[in-house]
Amino acid sequence: MTTESSFINLLRGFAIDPAARGLLDDVAVVDIGDASLIITHDMMAEGVHFRSNANPADVAWKLLASNLSDLAAKGASPIGVLLGFMLGDDAWDRAFAMGLEKALSHYKVALLGGDTVANRGDKRALGLTALGMATHRPVPSRSGAQIGDILYVTGTLGDALAGFELMDAGFDEIGPLADAFNRPVARLADGQALAPIVTAMMDVSDGLLLDAERMATASQNGIEIDLACVPLSPLYIGYRTDSLESRMQAASWGDDYQLLFTASPEAAIAVPATAVGRVVAGGGLTLKNGEAPVKLPPTLGYQHQ
Amino acid sequence: MTTESSFINLLRGFAIDPAARGLLDDVAVVDIGDASLIITHDMMAEGVHFRSNANPADVAWKLLASNLSDLAAKGASPIGVLLGFMLGDDAWDRAFAMGLEKALSHYKVALLGGDTVANRGDKRALGLTALGMATHRPVPSRSGAQIGDILYVTGTLGDALAGFELMDAGFDEIGPLADAFNRPVARLADGQALAPIVTAMMDVSDGLLLDAERMATASQNGIEIDLACVPLSPLYIGYRTDSLESRMQAASWGDDYQLLFTASPEAAIAVPATAVGRVVAGGGLTLKNGEAPVKLPPTLGYQHQ
Repeated sequence: MTTESSFINLLRGFAIDPAARGLLDDVAVVDIGDASLIITHDMMAEGVHFRSNANPADVAWKLLASNLSDLAAKGASPIGVLLGFMLGDDAWDRAFAMGLEKALSHYKVALLGGDTVANRGDKRALGLTALGMATHRPVPSRSGAQIGDILYVTGTLGDALAGFELMDAGFDEIGPLADAFNRPVARLADGQALAPIVTAMMDVSDGLLLDAERMATASQNGIEIDLACVPLSPLYIGYRTDSLESRMQAASWGDDYQLLFTASPEAAIAVPATAVGRVVAGGGLTLKNGEAPVKLPPTLGYQHQ
Repeated sequence: MTTESSFINLLRGFAIDPAARGLLDDVAVVDIGDASLIITHDMMAEGVHFRSNANPADVAWKLLASNLSDLAAKGASPIGVLLGFMLGDDAWDRAFAMGLEKALSHYKVALLGGDTVANRGDKRALGLTALGMATHRPVPSRSGAQIGDILYVTGTLGDALAGFELMDAGFDEIGPLADAFNRPVARLADGQALAPIVTAMMDVSDGLLLDAERMATASQNGIEIDLACVPLSPLYIGYRTDSLESRMQAASWGDDYQLLFTASPEAAIAVPATAVGRVVAGGGLTLKNGEAPVKLPPTLGYQHQ
């Protein structure tokens, strides 16, 4: 089985248009006259991104929110989406369509088109393309983190992990933690407020540590994260205690869709966010816990197979 | 199993943005300042659109060409594409990437981004989103066919059908007919030349009869096709003879990706095309063979399950 990174390396050899951003960003940025169009395509597969018994309305919500989150990380205002849908069981498909309508209506985003295919396999694959318009140019990238910048993350981390584990254990109606996994929030207003002041920005879809390492690589600098600063919710702490181990776990799991960004120490941060580290010379990711150095865990986050 | 048409009817209830064109067109048309962005998303599934033993480079070519064909039908000039790719066997994935590079290079289209997912099922599903810019406004739609207009189709029909049948019978190296199925041509230059003079335009992806009926429905008029006028290639005639039956088959099969359009009888048609019918009062599709009426076949074309 090919890995995502080896396949993207193959594509990188010919994705040389500047709008592709070297396939190092979550989105493509296409300049049209005075406007910058932001466009992204994310897929979700049954058995990988959602369980076979997941609520179809939750799947629709997450498919939309995860794509809009990529737009949020670029400070974009969404225009609309195109859906790639694999048909299947009638009740599932109806519940998905109703859930999609609710999610689109929540975010005030238009369904513009798409395509359907019959399912000849046993697992569904769904895709969504989201279009937005940049509200600030230059459009934030992953690659602008400068030595001396502070690294921030919005909200709290780990809630989606706790929600997933609770549901996996059969506690489906667990409320806010399950919601954190099933119904992530695309931080569009935060992204638009932050776009003018950040030096780099992306969303945390695969885990703070893995995504911060990607930002470091794209920026050709190092990033140092202080695990003692990782923001945890009272619910997450209640579920798992507040320890170095639980902070490491919260920082190594995706699905939270918070915004991760760097800004100059002088910048006034206009949205609630927590400083979790800083940009340093060198390359890659280093960890500490307060003043104590911490070894990198074997897995930094969710690596797509 | 939900059918494509019933699912799209569900979506139509809330796809009310004018850019969605009521989900009656192949594309969405998003106006950005003085420009019209044309955007389309098509999927291909193993076992539905391509055989499991298909050449991955052919699959890549067809995935690109079928999406660019939707842009061609709107007279658009392509900008770039986003790929939704399901990972699998390493050799297959490499051959696909190499084939995609060749196809993109042939059409001078940029790869802008996309996403990959692991394959947890047994069949691949692939998606492509294509963006283009309108070269003429208003952008041709399916819905503008006027009573008295002539119905035209570019090129010849049936070659892809013959190619598919020959490959299915084990004759994989059959040359131009297999190429017609495996390597369809997106008629971008034709579409751009035609956009200023057509009243309606679409591509023939599911069969002349089915797609003409869709154009009639979208235009709220009737379309009459003369099967005696359906253009066949010498190769198709050599493979299947020239009879009413073989014309009916060529007109009921997709994958040819010719352009189907209507224009006033006075319009000078700037590209090679064959008049195959006309727009009439009433609704739906009627067939004749010369002067003799012909009953509609039970299946007008490729209906997605």
